[in-house]
Amino acid sequence: MMIPKKLVVIAPHPDDETLGCGGTIARFAASGTEVSVLVVAGHLPPLYAEAAFETTRREALAAFKIMGVAQSAFLRIPATLVRDVPVAELNGKINGFIREIGPDMVLLPFPDRHIDHRIIFDACIVACRPVHAAAPKAVLAYETLSETHWNVAGIEPVFAPEFFIDTTDYMAKKNAALACYASQINHAPSRSVEACTALAKFRGSQNGCGYAEAFKVVRIVV
Amino acid sequence: MMIPKKLVVIAPHPDDETLGCGGTIARFAASGTEVSVLVVAGHLPPLYAEAAFETTRREALAAFKIMGVAQSAFLRIPATLVRDVPVAELNGKINGFIREIGPDMVLLPFPDRHIDHRIIFDACIVACRPVHAAAPKAVLAYETLSETHWNVAGIEPVFAPEFFIDTTDYMAKKNAALACYASQINHAPSRSVEACTALAKFRGSQNGCGYAEAFKVVRIVV
Amino acid sequence: MMIPKKLVVIAPHPDDETLGCGGTIARFAASGTEVSVLVVAGHLPPLYAEAAFETTRREALAAFKIMGVAQSAFLRIPATLVRDVPVAELNGKINGFIREIGPDMVLLPFPDRHIDHRIIFDACIVACRPVHAAAPKAVLAYETLSETHWNVAGIEPVFAPEFFIDTTDYMAKKNAALACYASQINHAPSRSVEACTALAKFRGSQNGCGYAEAFKVVRIVV
Amino acid sequence: MMIPKKLVVIAPHPDDETLGCGGTIARFAASGTEVSVLVVAGHLPPLYAEAAFETTRREALAAFKIMGVAQSAFLRIPATLVRDVPVAELNGKINGFIREIGPDMVLLPFPDRHIDHRIIFDACIVACRPVHAAAPKAVLAYETLSETHWNVAGIEPVFAPEFFIDTTDYMAKKNAALACYASQINHAPSRSVEACTALAKFRGSQNGCGYAEAFKVVRIVV
Amino acid sequence: MMIPKKLVVIAPHPDDETLGCGGTIARFAASGTEVSVLVVAGHLPPLYAEAAFETTRREALAAFKIMGVAQSAFLRIPATLVRDVPVAELNGKINGFIREIGPDMVLLPFPDRHIDHRIIFDACIVACRPVHAAAPKAVLAYETLSETHWNVAGIEPVFAPEFFIDTTDYMAKKNAALACYASQINHAPSRSVEACTALAKFRGSQNGCGYAEAFKVVRIVV
Amino acid sequence: MMIPKKLVVIAPHPDDETLGCGGTIARFAASGTEVSVLVVAGHLPPLYAEAAFETTRREALAAFKIMGVAQSAFLRIPATLVRDVPVAELNGKINGFIREIGPDMVLLPFPDRHIDHRIIFDACIVACRPVHAAAPKAVLAYETLSETHWNVAGIEPVFAPEFFIDTTDYMAKKNAALACYASQINHAPSRSVEACTALAKFRGSQNGCGYAEAFKVVRIVV
Repeated sequence: MMIPKKLVVIAPHPDDETLGCGGTIARFAASGTEVSVLVVAGHLPPLYAEAAFETTRREALAAFKIMGVAQSAFLRIPATLVRDVPVAELNGKINGFIREIGPDMVLLPFPDRHIDHRIIFDACIVACRPVHAAAPKAVLAYETLSETHWNVAGIEPVFAPEFFIDTTDYMAKKNAALACYASQINHAPSRSVEACTALAKFRGSQNGCGYAEAFKVVRIVV
Repeated sequence: MMIPKKLVVIAPHPDDETLGCGGTIARFAASGTEVSVLVVAGHLPPLYAEAAFETTRREALAAFKIMGVAQSAFLRIPATLVRDVPVAELNGKINGFIREIGPDMVLLPFPDRHIDHRIIFDACIVACRPVHAAAPKAVLAYETLSETHWNVAGIEPVFAPEFFIDTTDYMAKKNAALACYASQINHAPSRSVEACTALAKFRGSQNGCGYAEAFKVVRIVV
Repeated sequence: MMIPKKLVVIAPHPDDETLGCGGTIARFAASGTEVSVLVVAGHLPPLYAEAAFETTRREALAAFKIMGVAQSAFLRIPATLVRDVPVAELNGKINGFIREIGPDMVLLPFPDRHIDHRIIFDACIVACRPVHAAAPKAVLAYETLSETHWNVAGIEPVFAPEFFIDTTDYMAKKNAALACYASQINHAPSRSVEACTALAKFRGSQNGCGYAEAFKVVRIVV
Repeated sequence: MMIPKKLVVIAPHPDDETLGCGGTIARFAASGTEVSVLVVAGHLPPLYAEAAFETTRREALAAFKIMGVAQSAFLRIPATLVRDVPVAELNGKINGFIREIGPDMVLLPFPDRHIDHRIIFDACIVACRPVHAAAPKAVLAYETLSETHWNVAGIEPVFAPEFFIDTTDYMAKKNAALACYASQINHAPSRSVEACTALAKFRGSQNGCGYAEAFKVVRIVV
Repeated sequence: MMIPKKLVVIAPHPDDETLGCGGTIARFAASGTEVSVLVVAGHLPPLYAEAAFETTRREALAAFKIMGVAQSAFLRIPATLVRDVPVAELNGKINGFIREIGPDMVLLPFPDRHIDHRIIFDACIVACRPVHAAAPKAVLAYETLSETHWNVAGIEPVFAPEFFIDTTDYMAKKNAALACYASQINHAPSRSVEACTALAKFRGSQNGCGYAEAFKVVRIVV
Repeated sequence: MMIPKKLVVIAPHPDDETLGCGGTIARFAASGTEVSVLVVAGHLPPLYAEAAFETTRREALAAFKIMGVAQSAFLRIPATLVRDVPVAELNGKINGFIREIGPDMVLLPFPDRHIDHRIIFDACIVACRPVHAAAPKAVLAYETLSETHWNVAGIEPVFAPEFFIDTTDYMAKKNAALACYASQINHAPSRSVEACTALAKFRGSQNGCGYAEAFKVVRIVV
């Protein structure tokens, strides 16, 4: 049960969607789900050179292809400056993307150590409010290796998941997609493919399957 | 999505299952789900006269019939004395009921002001651990009007639901089932049919439907 | 006990004060309390047409009259842009209103899904710090139907009230005041008069009275 | 505002009532409140010699006299064995004491490191449920120096008070009452009169008065 | 910094100490720390055959030898029946072990899904109270694969660690010690050596080292 | 154990470092630790006259000398306007200070009622991420009398410390340093030397020593 017809994934930056739910995207896409990804921010000036944006966009498109993403869009907001966009404008753009597609499930980033993730989480929650009949029935927050686990326990929200998707048969695709992000994923302990695989193994061990991706439930309406 | 094939509801005492998820039982049963209810404790000596048990059991069976419950069992443990049953024995009995049926969804009581609810919550969680392939895929905790909302905010766990089941079309059946419990449901502000209907209306308003029952997700595995 | 002499209610937008504490205002006003309302933001450009502000202001004044509000003020900050006002300026305006009146009780909005509510909550808490002898002795946060209950459980603060005001005899006045807000209150499940009444019934059931409004205690000093 | 007519204080062991709310008892008694104290457990075999009970009981009565307690009772349950009393019996005894007096305010212990405090907290909360018209309108939990602050942050409930009673003018009486407990209060850092005074000074600094006692609100109904 | 002279590890059952802090034990022992382990409960009737106790005890002693444990003791309380031991007696036994050794660091189990872990956590916290000069200066709670992560998020305490010990160079010893527990550790997803290694890799990724064990700080006094 | 070689203290405004960890600074400096203080914001226009900055800077330097601070820097950002500095710029400045010194311990402000404290907390946590080998091994958050304890319990994070530093022998130096801040520390209940001493006495009573400073652990890696 719970294979959506249409899935929207909101990624703060290219690679967050693969780190957080690459196995889920691959599994659902293989099961017939139409998957759409919205990338909100990007590697743009003043923090990054203009060329960096195109590099990560190309990496993202290659990863999307491997995972079976049907369509994607990039909002081109400079990384770390998402909070400078007027609230109503940011909400409007994210809301527009979601309403046009009309998904039954939305995956959004957990509000963690990266300030863009927090601002985008807020905007996504507003966009997913159950105020009309087409609002998504399942809204889940995913974890992003490193950033999510640098929230301070006892002071900031902790990612304690209650929803798990078995990705045992899709780890190869996820790792292949991660490998596309040559400019982002490296061999540092905090964000390597090895660390990513270990996290999936640990999440699997929590719920009796081989590998899994974990989510915090924002809202499910049946 | 998410209509289970087999549903098990664990009720600490007769009426908790109707108060907490009577609309859900009625809706799922009408949709083809096989619903089984286990009532753990009952109105027995030393706190109640022996006859009280039979009264509430008859009321429960009448309510079960209205909601479409397929089968039920009563463990006959005296109310408020559940904690005196050896842990392994209580876990074993609840586990046995669940394993025999092999449900894909289990609804269990939130650990609230009533001590039996807390003990039974613990036993249910142990019984639902994902340690074998037949473990239930969806485990949810329901609220019980009055008891659940007497947990002390800031000291004890608060029922803050993220999972909602639209029961708009099944409120009549739920209220009819509640009406069977003549010995339990009364016109006191804390547990009247009016209060129960108001709660369902409020839960509905949280997620965009007319009436709803609310749940806290223990674990969902897809 | 606890009927204040002077009460200040801070409303982020017109109607929040009635949704959150209309029954309390009516009851206290009828008991001799001098009630003052400060409306911080309003329906102004760029999000709304200029005319919308006057409409809601007229609706608010009509509602205030029904509930017995003695005096009110409107800060005229455009909705969703409250965070753009310099912190010291916003704090100063709210602080100025409170200090001029010198209330013994202040009711302020819970920091929920609406970003204005969060910013105004912060400013109110600063304004109510116990740093001088005239600081208010009782400071309480009220809930706003829909917005408050869209905070994400487990990630954002949950409204779990411990303070209740019996409004059984003042529901008619509250509903009449709500009816004044023709442009705001509608028949959507999330914000209808029916949903509002259901919430009051549920809050009443938590503490043994017919209908009630619920609050989170920020600080009470006796 | 908020001076009760009748106040009930539940003390797990003799001295908890003075440590937690001695200044409040003295202030309210001096203001005309009828104060009643119920001491639940005591220094009895098997953990203590029989004589220890009488010693602490005499100390308690002396302290009660200084603070202005109108009446008191001792349930004589052996310390650390409160959990062995059947739940319904313990609830019944505490409930009986409260119902006979019919207080408008009840002060009860925070559920902290001492197991008796946890069991008695539970029983008091059950006894104070708002299920009849005479239920107490204000129910507050007090802190007990040392025990309360040994709960483990992030794992167990933390005492984060929102209700303060100014005891500046009653610290002398509180300290005199504490001095009666020669067998309990000593010069160890964790429970000395100096530590107790420092805590009151700190609580005072949180809310703008000289010295204060702090409480967690269980429920206030107006 | 922070290599203790004497370390005490409290294990509810044999294998918990290796699962939770086997790498730490091995690293500290190799650094000159005197490590002592107290095993509280065991595989005894009525839940297990008498012979099971000796099997797991032999496995434990083999594991202790590999990790470099200097001394150990077994309290021989039957598993799942720890709560039936009188509180004062259980506290006394654990306290006696700790006081005799006089450690500067104690590692104890997180209060999780296994009822014995909860009861023993309570007893350990009481035994480690800072009430005398020889009380341990660092008290930390460790996680136990599977049990710890079956606590229900939003209802029960979540293991959100803030203290990490780099065990990169001691994973081989930890795994060798785990391998001694042939009767306990198996290839089920929830408790295999693979899952255990994945958890250590994930914990390492949180704090910039290869592999790590994670702890929740109960108290550190410098 | 745990005396750092190099300590960095981040102070939002001059005096926060002394209020929160003046005793710790004095004790560590006396033990050979090289202590560096970064003051982020200051008393500058538009909220304060230009001259106020120099006054508090002189007071700070006098306090630093008493406590044994080896070096300090002032970023000269106007108080209450820290949030207007671009995130990447603020993070960069704090990160630069920390990386140049390479401390093994960092003390940073708890995110409390003062908006500058929240923004600076965020920036410090980013600067202390364990993403390179020289990242600080111990990161702790300190409390600031008054501001920290005005966070709203149940809505905002509560300062519930688990790490204590015994400052019994350094209270005289701390109080002398506080006395340097003639323009900041006064005789109001919320921030007097008396209140500060009472807090240290209370923190000491929690962990068995005379006086102490308390911290929340952000991360410790051994």
